Amino acid sequence: MAKSINICLVGQKFMGRTHSNAYMKVAKYFDLALQPVMHTLVARDQAELAEFARRWGWANTSTDWRAAFQNPEIGLIDIGTPNNVHAEMAIAALEAGKHVACEKPLANTLAGARQMRDAARKAKKSKTFVWYNYRRVPAVALAHQLVKEGRLGRIYHVRGYYLQDWAGPDVPLIWRFQKKIAGSGSHGDLNAHIIDMARFITGEEVAEVSGAIMETFVKERVIPSQGSTGGISGGAKGSAAKGRSDVDDAVLFLGRMTGGAVCSFEATRFATGYQNKNGVEVHGEKGAISFNFEDMNYLSWLDNTVPARLRGWTRVPTTGGDHPWAGAYWPPAHIIGYEHTFMNQAADMLNALGGRKPIVPLPDFEDAYQTQRILEAVSVSVRERCPVKVREVK
Amino acid sequence: MAKSINICLVGQKFMGRTHSNAYMKVAKYFDLALQPVMHTLVARDQAELAEFARRWGWANTSTDWRAAFQNPEIGLIDIGTPNNVHAEMAIAALEAGKHVACEKPLANTLAGARQMRDAARKAKKSKTFVWYNYRRVPAVALAHQLVKEGRLGRIYHVRGYYLQDWAGPDVPLIWRFQKKIAGSGSHGDLNAHIIDMARFITGEEVAEVSGAIMETFVKERVIPSQGSTGGISGGAKGSAAKGRSDVDDAVLFLGRMTGGAVCSFEATRFATGYQNKNGVEVHGEKGAISFNFEDMNYLSWLDNTVPARLRGWTRVPTTGGDHPWAGAYWPPAHIIGYEHTFMNQAADMLNALGGRKPIVPLPDFEDAYQTQRILEAVSVSVRERCPVKVREVK
Amino acid sequence: MAKSINICLVGQKFMGRTHSNAYMKVAKYFDLALQPVMHTLVARDQAELAEFARRWGWANTSTDWRAAFQNPEIGLIDIGTPNNVHAEMAIAALEAGKHVACEKPLANTLAGARQMRDAARKAKKSKTFVWYNYRRVPAVALAHQLVKEGRLGRIYHVRGYYLQDWAGPDVPLIWRFQKKIAGSGSHGDLNAHIIDMARFITGEEVAEVSGAIMETFVKERVIPSQGSTGGISGGAKGSAAKGRSDVDDAVLFLGRMTGGAVCSFEATRFATGYQNKNGVEVHGEKGAISFNFEDMNYLSWLDNTVPARLRGWTRVPTTGGDHPWAGAYWPPAHIIGYEHTFMNQAADMLNALGGRKPIVPLPDFEDAYQTQRILEAVSVSVRERCPVKVREVK
Amino acid sequence: MAKSINICLVGQKFMGRTHSNAYMKVAKYFDLALQPVMHTLVARDQAELAEFARRWGWANTSTDWRAAFQNPEIGLIDIGTPNNVHAEMAIAALEAGKHVACEKPLANTLAGARQMRDAARKAKKSKTFVWYNYRRVPAVALAHQLVKEGRLGRIYHVRGYYLQDWAGPDVPLIWRFQKKIAGSGSHGDLNAHIIDMARFITGEEVAEVSGAIMETFVKERVIPSQGSTGGISGGAKGSAAKGRSDVDDAVLFLGRMTGGAVCSFEATRFATGYQNKNGVEVHGEKGAISFNFEDMNYLSWLDNTVPARLRGWTRVPTTGGDHPWAGAYWPPAHIIGYEHTFMNQAADMLNALGGRKPIVPLPDFEDAYQTQRILEAVSVSVRERCPVKVREVK
Repeated sequence: MAKSINICLVGQKFMGRTHSNAYMKVAKYFDLALQPVMHTLVARDQAELAEFARRWGWANTSTDWRAAFQNPEIGLIDIGTPNNVHAEMAIAALEAGKHVACEKPLANTLAGARQMRDAARKAKKSKTFVWYNYRRVPAVALAHQLVKEGRLGRIYHVRGYYLQDWAGPDVPLIWRFQKKIAGSGSHGDLNAHIIDMARFITGEEVAEVSGAIMETFVKERVIPSQGSTGGISGGAKGSAAKGRSDVDDAVLFLGRMTGGAVCSFEATRFATGYQNKNGVEVHGEKGAISFNFEDMNYLSWLDNTVPARLRGWTRVPTTGGDHPWAGAYWPPAHIIGYEHTFMNQAADMLNALGGRKPIVPLPDFEDAYQTQRILEAVSVSVRERCPVKVREVK
Repeated sequence: MAKSINICLVGQKFMGRTHSNAYMKVAKYFDLALQPVMHTLVARDQAELAEFARRWGWANTSTDWRAAFQNPEIGLIDIGTPNNVHAEMAIAALEAGKHVACEKPLANTLAGARQMRDAARKAKKSKTFVWYNYRRVPAVALAHQLVKEGRLGRIYHVRGYYLQDWAGPDVPLIWRFQKKIAGSGSHGDLNAHIIDMARFITGEEVAEVSGAIMETFVKERVIPSQGSTGGISGGAKGSAAKGRSDVDDAVLFLGRMTGGAVCSFEATRFATGYQNKNGVEVHGEKGAISFNFEDMNYLSWLDNTVPARLRGWTRVPTTGGDHPWAGAYWPPAHIIGYEHTFMNQAADMLNALGGRKPIVPLPDFEDAYQTQRILEAVSVSVRERCPVKVREVK
Repeated sequence: MAKSINICLVGQKFMGRTHSNAYMKVAKYFDLALQPVMHTLVARDQAELAEFARRWGWANTSTDWRAAFQNPEIGLIDIGTPNNVHAEMAIAALEAGKHVACEKPLANTLAGARQMRDAARKAKKSKTFVWYNYRRVPAVALAHQLVKEGRLGRIYHVRGYYLQDWAGPDVPLIWRFQKKIAGSGSHGDLNAHIIDMARFITGEEVAEVSGAIMETFVKERVIPSQGSTGGISGGAKGSAAKGRSDVDDAVLFLGRMTGGAVCSFEATRFATGYQNKNGVEVHGEKGAISFNFEDMNYLSWLDNTVPARLRGWTRVPTTGGDHPWAGAYWPPAHIIGYEHTFMNQAADMLNALGGRKPIVPLPDFEDAYQTQRILEAVSVSVRERCPVKVREVK
Repeated sequence: MAKSINICLVGQKFMGRTHSNAYMKVAKYFDLALQPVMHTLVARDQAELAEFARRWGWANTSTDWRAAFQNPEIGLIDIGTPNNVHAEMAIAALEAGKHVACEKPLANTLAGARQMRDAARKAKKSKTFVWYNYRRVPAVALAHQLVKEGRLGRIYHVRGYYLQDWAGPDVPLIWRFQKKIAGSGSHGDLNAHIIDMARFITGEEVAEVSGAIMETFVKERVIPSQGSTGGISGGAKGSAAKGRSDVDDAVLFLGRMTGGAVCSFEATRFATGYQNKNGVEVHGEKGAISFNFEDMNYLSWLDNTVPARLRGWTRVPTTGGDHPWAGAYWPPAHIIGYEHTFMNQAADMLNALGGRKPIVPLPDFEDAYQTQRILEAVSVSVRERCPVKVREVK
């Protein structure tokens, strides 16, 4: 019988579902070095907790995360809560000697992220992971591989965008619009993803934030009625009372990568018509890649070394046995979806904990801290209205 | 506690996996009238059986389907085997008083399909279902609804295509190339799906097959080595010995629908470059729809009543709460994949068994028999080289 | 000073414009072996004639085509009239010792086309051309070259489609709906083009028409008021009196190519939403191509010899110096349009008349007669409701 | 007989061709208030001049622009030269009492542009025009109309991009890389176009440049051999001697529009794979539009007031009689190309000179000066590394 690891998950909202689903299914598709056991679910709301645990198959439940973290049976603690409690929980988990997986962004402040990074450094026996799940899209991993193989040559341009449109003036003041809980709006929610993807694909860092802009288009929103603070869609119109949205609705910035490329990033919840257009483009001397999550089963690739007569963008379906993770699922072109990115990450985490090397690098706290530094540099650039150097250009 | 039904699944290959996955997950996403219980898995290979059952969570296993079908605990028997045993199994299951779900096409001969239809008519207490899963793509169901609402007006053209390219000359002689097992090649495998989709979307029948063409491009294939007859991809090069492929690699036909539209269908495994291009287009006086499974989360819709200045094809993402089934999964634009069509069908079947009405019609044996009649008419048209009337044009 | 040739054009409607425009502009872009001189314009309507000639720069006009054809100054006679007068005019022009360019299809009957072919054979000093202008789309010529270079290998499937939607029930009974003038509807107008393109790209002939369907969706149309019989768009609502449309609105057929491929063709004026979707797809063992005129500056190309990991459809922009004709116009990606196909053909005709070899084969009467035979075979297949052999399969 | 105006064109390179072609053809398609007469062509190279004039039909030639401008027969002077001589020529032309059309950007310095603007203000009888030809793409004009009709509502985001890839390290040091001639690189060449398009479509101004980045990726280039400084493609490898490229290869900036929207612009010659991706996107509360020149015959339009069930991007073909200018050409969907934008502008200019109102606003010197101010603000922002206010935010 294969070895296994007991997991404790904190959170039962959107990310609670994606993680539960991943743990439930990952061993069906993948032959893992370590089997996941859905041991304990932790959340604040006792009533919802039982129902959620039953539905998704968690063996135990608890409303006391501190106690749960001390349970010697638990091997991996997975934090799927809002950003403001990541640091406290992750540090406690590390101090309890556990492996830790944490939702992104690492924390809601750079200081918090640094403490987490330091705690991870200290906890030498613990592995840490951050759920930058878009690295686990087969097309994104293929892009990473192509750059690593030198197929793009010198990189000129990196372009990241995460365009959503769900946050119109009618959406009430859910937690995502409250800085004290979310830390930020589109910045931590969306920019975090595309900065991580750009770093992952290019293998470079953002060296400088050269200019940035931040905007809250809708400054006041209706306060939702009790109990409806959860999902993205919010829904409940609530009372007529209004409160202030103190997070960014959109953040754009320009910068330079350590390798000399120019980069630009745009995150917004107000790009009418784009529900989830989350992508990265990289233009190099020898080739270019373009990825857009709305078309997630494909990578667009241009080989600039092909003679001009037949040169053009190739739309590569990444659903076959030659593509990362894809062979674990269905025959070629029987496409996968959003949730499979979480399964792929769960597979790689469990394999890493079992001693295997993941197919492509997994983000740990150290790695995610670098993304957090860039997020912070953007915030400083906005506040100070000037460029901010993140690290020396090579 | 919700009521439940015990399921017995026959088959552990490609369709065994899709059905198991659907039963395992459907209750996580949907609130069902009846909970599925993965009771018994039946297959011929004892060794594989245990491993498959363990992996996917089947409580019991058996290599004796006849015995399993008699088990009074079983409520629903699901047949996911090759086509040549559908009739025998389905009739036995109906005679045992069970509800029956069967993979498509209904049978590998029209006679077999008719017997199944007759058995279903006789078994008044049993419900029957056929896994024409593409009806359960949200975009396809939306297309069905639009036609039903009269938004296309008089229909002129119906175009179905299912284009694959996996069957090049290097693929060995797996069961899919053997008539005695598969019944046919691309015809039953692919045309069956697009005929069903066209019938489902338009609410019309094919009245006449006006012309047809059938071709086996690769007539001899290498006989695979023992134990590698399973997957689509086949893979194993096997010995040098060759055998005859006696199924069609491609079948195209033209016809007329009962409402007066002209229709055309193309099924092939030799459309180099199209791995799974499975689609239907319908052009009506007031509008048109176009669906392609390679882009399954979207429906293309053209409203011909919009003034020419702004008229054009609209690519509608069908991933929101206003679209069939989609609200059960993730926020809008967090796309779903191939496997979700099976979950959607499982949800509708379980709800139907629990007394609820499915969102859009579920194909039963009676319905699937009509598709089989069209498949047969095409075969006759090919053999006799003449048009074949299926039913009177309205 | 370069040598020149005097041209006499017959026709001043849609094709009169496209040809005039081509002769006016071709020498601006191309360095030609022979300069075109816009010598004489012939048409029936004296009033329109003068205005059209002035606008487009024809030096002389005439309403007497027989007299004009005898003018010894004329070197090339270009027939841009409705199909029913092609044969009479072309034969007269050949007998007058002129080179002849004729609009497609060659004639409105096979007998007429055969007489034209025979007259062309007899007139040994005359060159003939037919305006199958889509051969002169750079992407189509590139497709021809790729097949010729063996890059597709054995061909499995050929698919031609020409889908328009302008002929709804409100369009009056213009000449295009009258058999005595047009010869046929979508068949000669649209199928002729895609049959020619398929022959041109593959270098093969249609060997057999295996099945065909023809439909007139709108059987009665309003008779247009005097003087509005011209354009495609018709427009004028006219009197309430109705007349019978005796041409086909849609013609579909299936067949086999001489090299063993299966082919299918669809021509219709009732494909709601597709204004001018005119394309050809070819799937071979080693590669595939897809062309659609709605995206005419691009050729989609799939190289099946590329490893699966990076295999996919490449959208090749055909606007650079490495592509047929494209270098004569603007920098890469500064796209060209419909009218440039006529300029490209004019350039090749003038070069051919001046002794140069055209970039890719130009269709002459002999060649266009083969297309006419296929059109006729389809008509016979529809009438007799059976397959029709055009020539032996290799 | 219609009234006419004699034109004097300066320049015989890329823009000399596009303008000549426009004047030659515009009256074929459009019924104009004023007929263009191709009177005099001015350029420096006497030998090329004669050949160019003969080919394109200019009646007279001159190498002395000052003399030519004084010719009382001339009514309109069209300046198609490099940017560094725009100001001198345009001011002289205005002082000579002529109407003036000038290539974009208005000048190579803001001071020059201001002098031109002032000269235009003074020359009350002269009309001025600037060749921002992309306003004359039917899809772009339609976008302008939609915004003007209030169909987008409050605007949140404006995104302009002009991505080319022709300037790799092997391209020699043609005039486009020399600041003294070109004024700038991608900034004046490409950003000018997309800033103008954004202003035109939204009817708003850029209020603030919030951040900007400018990069010269290839700092040294081979000096081309004599006589090959012309085309974009350059071509000639030239000697081994290298010179310094002192213009920008890429310029990106972020800003705010006067109406409160956030805007971003990117111009580059190093976006490998994009030969001429020139577009604008606007997201408003009620709708969104997206235009990309690589697909120039279409406008993507999203109506956010449509219920979610059928909401999506509509790809509107803008080739019919209901679209600006398109009715002058061919039947719907018989697409037009790059050169037609110049014909459309020529038509509107000639109509404006003849007293008619153009379909959508034509840019004059006053208007183009505003674009120049923004270009300058970006340059200042790059130099000073800080935000630059262009005008007060409303």
